[in-house]
Amino acid sequence: MEPTVTPTDVAAAAQRLAGIVHHTPVMHSRTLNNLAGSPGRAIYLKCENFQRVGAFKFRGAYNAVSQLSPAEKQAGVITHSSGNHAQGLALAARLLGVPATIVMPHNAPLIKRRATQGYGATIVPCDALEREAVTAQLIAAQGYTLIHPYDNDQIIAGQGTAAWELFDEIGELDFLFVPVGGGGLISGCALAAAARSPRCQVVGVEPAIAADANQSWREGAIHTLDYVPQTMADGLRTRFIGQRNLAIMRRYVHDMTTASEADIAATLRFVWERMKIIIEPSSAVALAPLYTGQYPLPAGARAGVIISGGNVDIAHVQSTIFN
Amino acid sequence: MEPTVTPTDVAAAAQRLAGIVHHTPVMHSRTLNNLAGSPGRAIYLKCENFQRVGAFKFRGAYNAVSQLSPAEKQAGVITHSSGNHAQGLALAARLLGVPATIVMPHNAPLIKRRATQGYGATIVPCDALEREAVTAQLIAAQGYTLIHPYDNDQIIAGQGTAAWELFDEIGELDFLFVPVGGGGLISGCALAAAARSPRCQVVGVEPAIAADANQSWREGAIHTLDYVPQTMADGLRTRFIGQRNLAIMRRYVHDMTTASEADIAATLRFVWERMKIIIEPSSAVALAPLYTGQYPLPAGARAGVIISGGNVDIAHVQSTIFN
Repeated sequence: MEPTVTPTDVAAAAQRLAGIVHHTPVMHSRTLNNLAGSPGRAIYLKCENFQRVGAFKFRGAYNAVSQLSPAEKQAGVITHSSGNHAQGLALAARLLGVPATIVMPHNAPLIKRRATQGYGATIVPCDALEREAVTAQLIAAQGYTLIHPYDNDQIIAGQGTAAWELFDEIGELDFLFVPVGGGGLISGCALAAAARSPRCQVVGVEPAIAADANQSWREGAIHTLDYVPQTMADGLRTRFIGQRNLAIMRRYVHDMTTASEADIAATLRFVWERMKIIIEPSSAVALAPLYTGQYPLPAGARAGVIISGGNVDIAHVQSTIFN
Repeated sequence: MEPTVTPTDVAAAAQRLAGIVHHTPVMHSRTLNNLAGSPGRAIYLKCENFQRVGAFKFRGAYNAVSQLSPAEKQAGVITHSSGNHAQGLALAARLLGVPATIVMPHNAPLIKRRATQGYGATIVPCDALEREAVTAQLIAAQGYTLIHPYDNDQIIAGQGTAAWELFDEIGELDFLFVPVGGGGLISGCALAAAARSPRCQVVGVEPAIAADANQSWREGAIHTLDYVPQTMADGLRTRFIGQRNLAIMRRYVHDMTTASEADIAATLRFVWERMKIIIEPSSAVALAPLYTGQYPLPAGARAGVIISGGNVDIAHVQSTIFN
């Protein structure tokens, strides 16, 4: 399969989203730059934890919903998710006057359910294993348009605007580290890098216990986990990436690596305690190889890291990481 | 007593500190602006939690140490503190090549002791009640210069640069809310407001159970608490403000108010969960009257809030606020 999205699509999405998404800040830390022995390295965190709904997912969702036809908009959109994509889609749909239905497992955390309802979406509860079936039934019966969380061209282009903005703000980079779940974010960001910083090495990072995308990228065929990996990075528990994502990653991603659960926790702790920002474990995954020094950079290298979001149950993080 | 510091001193400090202190970001939140029924209000948080050492205290400390004579610098500086002032002074002294001694109670948290040592200061442990006596002995024996945490002209001028930068970035304001402990921060910030935004109403906020400065400001004489108030805002447990601070506050501060412990906790929780930044309870104090709506603003008002710092024991905050 050839890539179905181009850098031009990301550029168009960036124009479309300007003034609607937050232009999130880029943060850095002298302490972080000086850790782990890459002399003179400079690390720039693109802080999508400050994005609307608390995560980058709003970018892709708005980009996708805004390009539906009038008839599709009137019929409404649907997805199955209990995480940031649900909230991103719910807010995007509300802003565009489009009805949104979110199929959510009975056991989804109440806080996420309430947040999604707060953006005006209709929640359809179901058994976790029936999510796809319930979604398909509703599409057949109601004519909803499925907005897939990552295997969707406009979602990919929208997520790439996070990196697009980063290059706008700090110019070209030598490296860009991106967390990988279903592959939507890294696909879009790698396309952005190809256009804006052609020599930039794009590196995908997964939890070591959920490394299906590492394997898929290396083998050129989608590898599917036969279990839901219980990584603390709950945004990266996807069992497989999409075909669209694989095609883009094979062409535009330069390397893939992993982070252990212990390193994810240590990195999150550093960012909360020393950088004073709340990030979710999935974001710590992308920074972990640099925080620990396990991915040494050449002297003087400039590296970007996409901090994907900040939606966490603070009490839960405390009991597992700060105890 | 007449004010001993002028807006011109704050301007000079701002020039002196440029490029040495972090120019900290100003953050805002659509949700926060829309809470609590002041239509069209805009609230700007000046985020000194991102300052070096994690708090505004580095500003005053550097301003004070940098202006000592060569002989004073050679002899070294001293203070008694277990909090942010100790760390700010330790870092400022190290950057300026000045020896620093910090008199610290035996029971100071290990994390604060280590952080202060990490900046190269010498720690002198003592019993809590002997801090002033031990400090005085060391000054007599060693010729150190005392850098008082708030009752010091150059400390006041330095702290005022936080507000000076805020006006640089967002222009004039209708209100400026500042937390009050010993009065160093609000004194400097009120001087900055007088120069940069003369119609701005400067409002000091204290924990309700530590409201000595409210009383002192109203009565025009320093009121001293005869106990150490056990507010969760541990940076504001001072029992009395300084004479210099009172003189400036009487002339340049327009109102004083308080926040309950419950409102401090609720405000902190909102900022962590929704704005995704780690602030300390003392910072939540200044925002609480706006978060709760207890200090209603006129429609369309623009208000700044000085977020003083982000140094917290995350596990402790969780167990007391997020449980």
